[in-house]
Amino acid sequence: MTPTITAFERSPDGGKGLARDTRVRWALEELGQAYEVRLVSFGAMKEPAHMALHPFGQIPTLQEDGLALFETGAIVLHLAQQHPGLLPEDTQARARAVSWMFAALSTVEPPILELTMARLFERDKPWHAERLPILEARVRTRLEQLSARLGDAEWLDGAFSAGDLMMVHVLLRLRSTGLLDEFPRLAAYVARAEARPAYQRAFAAQLAVNTRPA
Amino acid sequence: MTPTITAFERSPDGGKGLARDTRVRWALEELGQAYEVRLVSFGAMKEPAHMALHPFGQIPTLQEDGLALFETGAIVLHLAQQHPGLLPEDTQARARAVSWMFAALSTVEPPILELTMARLFERDKPWHAERLPILEARVRTRLEQLSARLGDAEWLDGAFSAGDLMMVHVLLRLRSTGLLDEFPRLAAYVARAEARPAYQRAFAAQLAVNTRPA
Repeated sequence: MTPTITAFERSPDGGKGLARDTRVRWALEELGQAYEVRLVSFGAMKEPAHMALHPFGQIPTLQEDGLALFETGAIVLHLAQQHPGLLPEDTQARARAVSWMFAALSTVEPPILELTMARLFERDKPWHAERLPILEARVRTRLEQLSARLGDAEWLDGAFSAGDLMMVHVLLRLRSTGLLDEFPRLAAYVARAEARPAYQRAFAAQLAVNTRPA
Repeated sequence: MTPTITAFERSPDGGKGLARDTRVRWALEELGQAYEVRLVSFGAMKEPAHMALHPFGQIPTLQEDGLALFETGAIVLHLAQQHPGLLPEDTQARARAVSWMFAALSTVEPPILELTMARLFERDKPWHAERLPILEARVRTRLEQLSARLGDAEWLDGAFSAGDLMMVHVLLRLRSTGLLDEFPRLAAYVARAEARPAYQRAFAAQLAVNTRPA
């Protein structure tokens, strides 16, 4: 059965591809799996029908063969376990790739989200000027460590994996801040991933949704 | 081979069990697996030997049979996939339990960490009084949603799983804030988990480390 994912009816980013459905679209494209998309308005996301699918009232979700999943990390991991292409076959290499998925979502993304939220919502607060450098420093620490680990490698651990997919999409949130450009290895890493045909297809698909006439 | 995990030489919480090695200890106890612990000082955590194990210079790590893993979520997931007891056998039920692991780490923990960091490090900042209620409101939203989903069930989805383990340990961070007590179902859920013999053993083991004579 073709899986169905949910996405914003209109993404707040207007089609920059930063909404989390792009991660699932990208994974499905890498795995060569067709999918359907059901668009959800901000209102509908908090109504009982959607909250039954996603306890925190967010997108994306995945529905397939009677299974309903939420959390982007869990959806991408499930898909990558069902179809070859995003996780190594070897058990140990697979566990390491999964480490990078968790690292992207639990260690790298939280300080990035705090920074982007402060830039969006605290711009007029009297504390913004003092807090912004603190938040940027937290992000820089993670980027320095990530860049050091990546070194001159193409991907984080061997072949491109679901760990790279998740990490790159987290890093894309930084594009408008200029922070990524301070770390040329990471900027090149992100550019390599964006050049993948599967990413291009995923990006185009979300762009078509978010720029369609009202 | 007995796995070796790393933990703080002295946890900043003085033995309250909030450091992330407690999550891995708890998982190993639930799975009936013996383990060894290597203690790491704050200095050593940032040195090359440890950074080779953990790119972000944190604890815990897991080493077993030539495999080196970082990220608590990835470690607990790997252990739960290797040994029965923390994940359902059924593929769909297993994917749902993994959703709760990611939800705990990516959706519930980040606002809780921001709140606890602000309470620790921004107490003397001029903005603390205005920011604190904003941070508390973010946490309350997640707790309301989690409590609504849990309802009168014992655990989040069927039997106790790695998803509950991770969620409960994330919620334990809130104990000192009083926020958990606003949600009696969640407070009871946490208490049920803390009463598990495996948790008791894990808690006692970290307490012994963190209260030993210098």
